[in-house]
Amino acid sequence: MSSQFGHVFRISTWGESHGGGVGVVIDGCPPLLELSEADIQKDLDRRRPGQSEIVTPRAEDDQCRILSGVFEGRTTGTPICVVVMNKDARPEAYREMEGAYRPSHADYTYQAKYGIRNWQGGGRASARETIGRVAAAAVAKKVLGRFFPGLEVVAYVKSIHGLVAEVDPATVRFEDVEANIVRCPDAGKAVEMIEFIKAVRSEGDSVGGVVEAVLRGVPAGLGEPVFDKLEAELAGAMLSWPATKGFEIGSGFVGTFYRGVEHNDAFVMREGAGGTKSNR
Amino acid sequence: MSSQFGHVFRISTWGESHGGGVGVVIDGCPPLLELSEADIQKDLDRRRPGQSEIVTPRAEDDQCRILSGVFEGRTTGTPICVVVMNKDARPEAYREMEGAYRPSHADYTYQAKYGIRNWQGGGRASARETIGRVAAAAVAKKVLGRFFPGLEVVAYVKSIHGLVAEVDPATVRFEDVEANIVRCPDAGKAVEMIEFIKAVRSEGDSVGGVVEAVLRGVPAGLGEPVFDKLEAELAGAMLSWPATKGFEIGSGFVGTFYRGVEHNDAFVMREGAGGTKSNR
Amino acid sequence: MSSQFGHVFRISTWGESHGGGVGVVIDGCPPLLELSEADIQKDLDRRRPGQSEIVTPRAEDDQCRILSGVFEGRTTGTPICVVVMNKDARPEAYREMEGAYRPSHADYTYQAKYGIRNWQGGGRASARETIGRVAAAAVAKKVLGRFFPGLEVVAYVKSIHGLVAEVDPATVRFEDVEANIVRCPDAGKAVEMIEFIKAVRSEGDSVGGVVEAVLRGVPAGLGEPVFDKLEAELAGAMLSWPATKGFEIGSGFVGTFYRGVEHNDAFVMREGAGGTKSNR
Amino acid sequence: MSSQFGHVFRISTWGESHGGGVGVVIDGCPPLLELSEADIQKDLDRRRPGQSEIVTPRAEDDQCRILSGVFEGRTTGTPICVVVMNKDARPEAYREMEGAYRPSHADYTYQAKYGIRNWQGGGRASARETIGRVAAAAVAKKVLGRFFPGLEVVAYVKSIHGLVAEVDPATVRFEDVEANIVRCPDAGKAVEMIEFIKAVRSEGDSVGGVVEAVLRGVPAGLGEPVFDKLEAELAGAMLSWPATKGFEIGSGFVGTFYRGVEHNDAFVMREGAGGTKSNR
Repeated sequence: MSSQFGHVFRISTWGESHGGGVGVVIDGCPPLLELSEADIQKDLDRRRPGQSEIVTPRAEDDQCRILSGVFEGRTTGTPICVVVMNKDARPEAYREMEGAYRPSHADYTYQAKYGIRNWQGGGRASARETIGRVAAAAVAKKVLGRFFPGLEVVAYVKSIHGLVAEVDPATVRFEDVEANIVRCPDAGKAVEMIEFIKAVRSEGDSVGGVVEAVLRGVPAGLGEPVFDKLEAELAGAMLSWPATKGFEIGSGFVGTFYRGVEHNDAFVMREGAGGTKSNR
Repeated sequence: MSSQFGHVFRISTWGESHGGGVGVVIDGCPPLLELSEADIQKDLDRRRPGQSEIVTPRAEDDQCRILSGVFEGRTTGTPICVVVMNKDARPEAYREMEGAYRPSHADYTYQAKYGIRNWQGGGRASARETIGRVAAAAVAKKVLGRFFPGLEVVAYVKSIHGLVAEVDPATVRFEDVEANIVRCPDAGKAVEMIEFIKAVRSEGDSVGGVVEAVLRGVPAGLGEPVFDKLEAELAGAMLSWPATKGFEIGSGFVGTFYRGVEHNDAFVMREGAGGTKSNR
Repeated sequence: MSSQFGHVFRISTWGESHGGGVGVVIDGCPPLLELSEADIQKDLDRRRPGQSEIVTPRAEDDQCRILSGVFEGRTTGTPICVVVMNKDARPEAYREMEGAYRPSHADYTYQAKYGIRNWQGGGRASARETIGRVAAAAVAKKVLGRFFPGLEVVAYVKSIHGLVAEVDPATVRFEDVEANIVRCPDAGKAVEMIEFIKAVRSEGDSVGGVVEAVLRGVPAGLGEPVFDKLEAELAGAMLSWPATKGFEIGSGFVGTFYRGVEHNDAFVMREGAGGTKSNR
Repeated sequence: MSSQFGHVFRISTWGESHGGGVGVVIDGCPPLLELSEADIQKDLDRRRPGQSEIVTPRAEDDQCRILSGVFEGRTTGTPICVVVMNKDARPEAYREMEGAYRPSHADYTYQAKYGIRNWQGGGRASARETIGRVAAAAVAKKVLGRFFPGLEVVAYVKSIHGLVAEVDPATVRFEDVEANIVRCPDAGKAVEMIEFIKAVRSEGDSVGGVVEAVLRGVPAGLGEPVFDKLEAELAGAMLSWPATKGFEIGSGFVGTFYRGVEHNDAFVMREGAGGTKSNR
């Protein structure tokens, strides 16, 4: 509980936006995986604010350091501590926050829960906390690549406000997502999204959207049968990101507009694998 | 993990649809709460299939028994084991299931994961597993009533297929929900829903819907700050119920159609409680 | 925590000495293991009080029942609930306990901790709680036998009061332990122990001893490296049994009387297994 | 599991003897406790090797840094990350270790378990790992001081080889322990111990001993009733320290030489606190 996620591969994030630094301890990572700071830095750079004109302009020039759990370029099976030091602690920049609670932020909630908060910024509720998650995910990708080489995850911006991308989940590729700064694989809609975001920003306003993810090559039987079902774990994980408000899997809410006969998930017999029945 | 939910108040459900019985062990329940089998039975009776003509006709006449953790009508702080024995194990009734995997069911998934399943029915994936959850929830309500007397949860059917009820979350009461067999507090829409479900059933088909819940009197600061946020825990819990596909909290997906200035969650100053700022 | 032990193979015991029954839920047991009530009953019968004239005369004729997790004689990977119903609840037998706290018992501790206790007997602190542990251990032995066929555990009474058995840990066998009612593989000392216990009992007094266990075929690297070391887990497990006061592993406390050069655990090179270095 | 200890106040240690650094993440620390790096440094300095001529001469001049969870001198309720950077990584110093497994060390065990180890030193099994524990304990003492002001723990060296100190557990004070470099409150025996250790060291040999701890003001009912009993948790914790081989509580093994009537833990009635019965 608290700042931890996972059981066997368990991550503990720590750190506030203003303070010594932020990071993560990853416990349960298998040994003998090749891992370098560059592997993690690559994903931290993707996460970094200030990369383009449509995201928060706050500049973060974060360099990660692996303090433990890696020896001569390979994981050792012991806890991996990844640290990103905070460079730019300018308490005075947010001094007016000490006595003010920003609406739609966690300021009041932290104050009510703990009776204290690091008011120099978002503190623990800052999006900087996600640095630890992104670093851990970079390591998790190494683990998945080793034990589930056929598993593929492609996530992308599906919609911004009323602008909904047309994406074929069966064919969308990671490269299409990376092709533009809004990370929407529908190139035409991406242009519209970028223009829209710029316009909204120019009015001092903000706007949100929907992220969609496609998982391919998921092994049958993944997840626990009752409480920790695959969809339950995913829902909990997704709603733990800051400012998320909904989660759907499969047909989602739209599925309630179908009857059972329309909505049935029929089996398809495939050749191969000994002729076993398999899911679509 | 696996068949457990919760940390301090932790429940472990067990049991298959066909076998000796189903139930739950509740660990971490505070002592000195008044608790009887009748308290639990009341909610099990609400859950029971075969109560009305719009639900599955399978008759379950389940009587629970508390085997531990209660002494002279009060909880003792030790684990509470609640058992409902399976009465009607007729393996032959489902004999054809041994070599067949029902689509949209977990039959294949269990077989793939474990290499074995209790094919006499849904086994562990049967909705009978929820008996343990309902029993545990009856106890949880006792705990909440004791420690958070102002906390109120009202849940109801919001929509069935295209039939969407009009419900005012601010005023809806539990009695309105209990007033009809479809448990929709919009009395007029409830009649339509019941007729619609009957018609669909008469065609051998099925249909789903959306459940909405209102929570009142939630203390500020509930939930953990990072991974086990209130919304993350709720999302994971809701998606762990059988056949659920989506979760929303607050404005949900519709919130993406608002801009920041429209969507802002402004503070309202209230009298009382020392004039503290408080959430709406 | 609380009434649970283990992580992957996790057991939750429940039940008081007087009440509906006692038992255990075993979560995380691998599927496809052969398991019957007879497998468990065999060990419950070994545990049972009243078997001989040297143990507590309280008669317990306990029959276990598996309520879930087993199908057609094999485990299904779902939680296994084992129940032993309490037969002989005679509250009046202990009525004077309601207002009395027995010294060297947990009566006062439970009352202080929870403000209530099942005073009809030892309640949760009764040795009857160990029925759930023994049942779970019977299942655990099946798991070990399947995945670590060379692993062998032989435990026996090493001493009673000043009577210390001579046992060669390298050769002692389970059959030697089972050869007498005090379960001491030193046959001559066993006779003395039995006579001594009878004499002590005839004076209305009691006496304790030391249990020693030998583990053979333990795979290298078992246990976690830091907190959940093999010896730490064993120590915690052993001290969780009622009325235990000490634990030693390897040379134990006597090791402090050796210097490093005398006490060193030198490697021995063995033929086979590719000539790998291996522990003694 | 793995590198974590505790549930509500949960610590995760990380780091190897040679590498970036060592440290701990403390999750679940209550907010609003006064905490500074000096509070932690004080205990790290007590732990530090090279302080006197009777301990390992390896010089460690470790300075801790708190990277998160503390704001303006007080804890915030968020994870506290404490880091001690490794200063003196001289891989060549231990180069011969790469192909050698030291007897009585964990070298072979790590290699067998993980297939890799940081052979530059003890790696994760180095006593440097305990820096994280000592830092966490310094914080834990703050928590105990706040919530259990009457609780007192005095631990000291009870024996070295055959030299056994005479200590009265009822009166021994922390200052007596700190009065000499072997931390034995029996001043005369301490001199003998120091001379003995010096003599053993001069022969290139080593020697061990027994640590005894007295706890005063422990609240009644501490610990969980079944598996996580107070004595079980203590036993597991103590055996998780490197090179520990035994644990006793109360009368320990010697208790087996007493009969029940001699060994009974009778209640003593005390004045005050409403005349409630209380333990000795």
